[in-house]
Amino acid sequence: MNIFLQHNPTKLYFGKGQISQLSGEIGQKKVLVVYGGGSIKQNGVYEDVMTELEKAGATIYELPGVEQNPRLTTVHKGVEICKFEAIDILLAVGGGSVIDCTKAIAVGAKYDGDVWDLITQKTPIESALPIGTVLTLGATGSEMNPISVISNWKTKDKIGWGSSHVFPRFSILDPTYTYSVSRKQTTYAIVDSMSHALEHYFHRTKNTPMIDGFIESLLRTAIGTGPKLLEDLTSYDHRETMMYISTTAFNETLSNGTDGGDWATHRIEHAISAVYDIPHGGGLAILFPNWLEHVLEEDPSRAKMLAMNVFGISDEGKSDLEVAREGAKALRSFWNSLDAPNRLSDYDIDDHDIELIIDKTFVKPGVGTYKELDRDNVRDILTRSM
Amino acid sequence: MNIFLQHNPTKLYFGKGQISQLSGEIGQKKVLVVYGGGSIKQNGVYEDVMTELEKAGATIYELPGVEQNPRLTTVHKGVEICKFEAIDILLAVGGGSVIDCTKAIAVGAKYDGDVWDLITQKTPIESALPIGTVLTLGATGSEMNPISVISNWKTKDKIGWGSSHVFPRFSILDPTYTYSVSRKQTTYAIVDSMSHALEHYFHRTKNTPMIDGFIESLLRTAIGTGPKLLEDLTSYDHRETMMYISTTAFNETLSNGTDGGDWATHRIEHAISAVYDIPHGGGLAILFPNWLEHVLEEDPSRAKMLAMNVFGISDEGKSDLEVAREGAKALRSFWNSLDAPNRLSDYDIDDHDIELIIDKTFVKPGVGTYKELDRDNVRDILTRSM
Repeated sequence: MNIFLQHNPTKLYFGKGQISQLSGEIGQKKVLVVYGGGSIKQNGVYEDVMTELEKAGATIYELPGVEQNPRLTTVHKGVEICKFEAIDILLAVGGGSVIDCTKAIAVGAKYDGDVWDLITQKTPIESALPIGTVLTLGATGSEMNPISVISNWKTKDKIGWGSSHVFPRFSILDPTYTYSVSRKQTTYAIVDSMSHALEHYFHRTKNTPMIDGFIESLLRTAIGTGPKLLEDLTSYDHRETMMYISTTAFNETLSNGTDGGDWATHRIEHAISAVYDIPHGGGLAILFPNWLEHVLEEDPSRAKMLAMNVFGISDEGKSDLEVAREGAKALRSFWNSLDAPNRLSDYDIDDHDIELIIDKTFVKPGVGTYKELDRDNVRDILTRSM
Repeated sequence: MNIFLQHNPTKLYFGKGQISQLSGEIGQKKVLVVYGGGSIKQNGVYEDVMTELEKAGATIYELPGVEQNPRLTTVHKGVEICKFEAIDILLAVGGGSVIDCTKAIAVGAKYDGDVWDLITQKTPIESALPIGTVLTLGATGSEMNPISVISNWKTKDKIGWGSSHVFPRFSILDPTYTYSVSRKQTTYAIVDSMSHALEHYFHRTKNTPMIDGFIESLLRTAIGTGPKLLEDLTSYDHRETMMYISTTAFNETLSNGTDGGDWATHRIEHAISAVYDIPHGGGLAILFPNWLEHVLEEDPSRAKMLAMNVFGISDEGKSDLEVAREGAKALRSFWNSLDAPNRLSDYDIDDHDIELIIDKTFVKPGVGTYKELDRDNVRDILTRSM
């Protein structure tokens, strides 16, 4: 293993009815409630949140309208409210996009210049307003990690960034709050969560059998649960399982002691959706199997482990490469069986902007660690994905 | 799953050389360094700690001599020093016994009456001095949990207790600090860590496949690593693996969302070692397989899972009970292969004090959750263990 620090300060309240923890966590503060397109007003979550905040005696401000790929312009709006109203705490009510946007507002509120300086790491992040979350769609893991992704639509950049200052203080995860998530969004969430686990899995650190086994258990559970959930979107058990999987897939449980894995697919997906604004989970479903098929040709070892320990593929009488290829195929088939997209053409994307996408992929240097990719490698993965 | 709160505030610094974090964590405070029989003075750990504390500019006090089953009398000594010298922070340097003793000192230092009132839950615990730890033997998990076990030699009681106030603020885990742990102590540590995982495994909560898989991965890794470590006590890789296993086996990673599992074996072991002062890991090695054989007769379901998913036993053409029994046998054989004790007679214990041990087991009501045991059940397990 590598040297590591294991420390996650987020308090995770998990289970039905845990919204009752909200008033105690907020108290008589000035709170800015950040949310998205308004689905929380249809499914009762907004009302539950407001009841709790009123019970707490909080002073409530609101920022609705956060986009699926949250935009810098919305972050600016939030920062302005925080500064003007002297907000004490931010409450994200939504999925990963809303939480990511809230994290950016939290650091922007404590900074005199443009928050984009912080997101692009031009200026180091030194503080942030405290954040709480009420999760309504588990996928990105943002509710228990220090990561955020923000799109600058003017420059067509989509940047992943992080700071220990933006770990949520608390997150409330009630599986019933995800009942109204559509079948398609649920599929994307399954793919996104599994992608996080898969990207963690492709590390280069030796002597990590226990953590590797944790990742395999998470993936097997997702494979066992995903199709059943899509058949029954209001099953408490399946919503619960997928919600906890999504948090665990990206809260450092799967990376303690490893080099953190290979996040090239996320980098390429961010580049594509900066240009085309496609759903993150859809992009990952298309890209990851092609990334996997690209890298296993050089080193099939971990793809073989994946095939055997997650998909139960036997290695009898087969070469490592054959087993690895069967694993990649099994992953692709599984996601296809959930009706996830599998070609960029599903989003009407052709090779017209391929060089621009490659440029955007390299907006920060160093793409990939299991295999460090160059422009030709990224072009190969994109071409396989068309 | 059950409703749960996931929150572990301990900062875990893991890996070779992480003692360098100590000075920053302590600063210019009045620190009481708590340790055991003095092995840390032979293996260089004491010197490393003192160098760091001097670098920090700390004012250093010492409490050596903590016993393997830490005693109330030693806790009293520590509490006295804390009160008299107005100690700011406690630093446990040692294994689980030293950390457990330090936790009791931490709560006693903030309480006007006898600390035994807190340990026996006669008085609720309201605060504690902060604690840091430098681990020299991973087994109990005390370095990253809120649990402690203290023996009152006068009343022959050994009590497990806990409080969120005694989570260590930080713990430093350097695998090289465990190189000098003897073969026998290492065996006990393996058994203790595996017991924690096994006791977590025998829960009654439905819909927990991911966490069950985590436990199985930890157990398979312990089984793969334990014998290799005993062959090569200064292997960094194997020490590292076992050290991280021991922390993970008891820091809530394996119990989020479950009922927490069945800790009857720990209760019975505490009762025995309150009367006979035997090593905790030795007692568990004797008791757990007998507990398992006792309970699987009524409900073989999880023992069967253990057999198949951890020991790789096939169920082809066998009844559930047969598979479960093979699992219990495989566990017993594995611990025997590490030269762990397997009968109480190995410690010269016969049935002379059996009723006293049963009394001590029930010093707190409710023994066991997977199966709630009565006096006859405990007698049966003890008789199987003689």
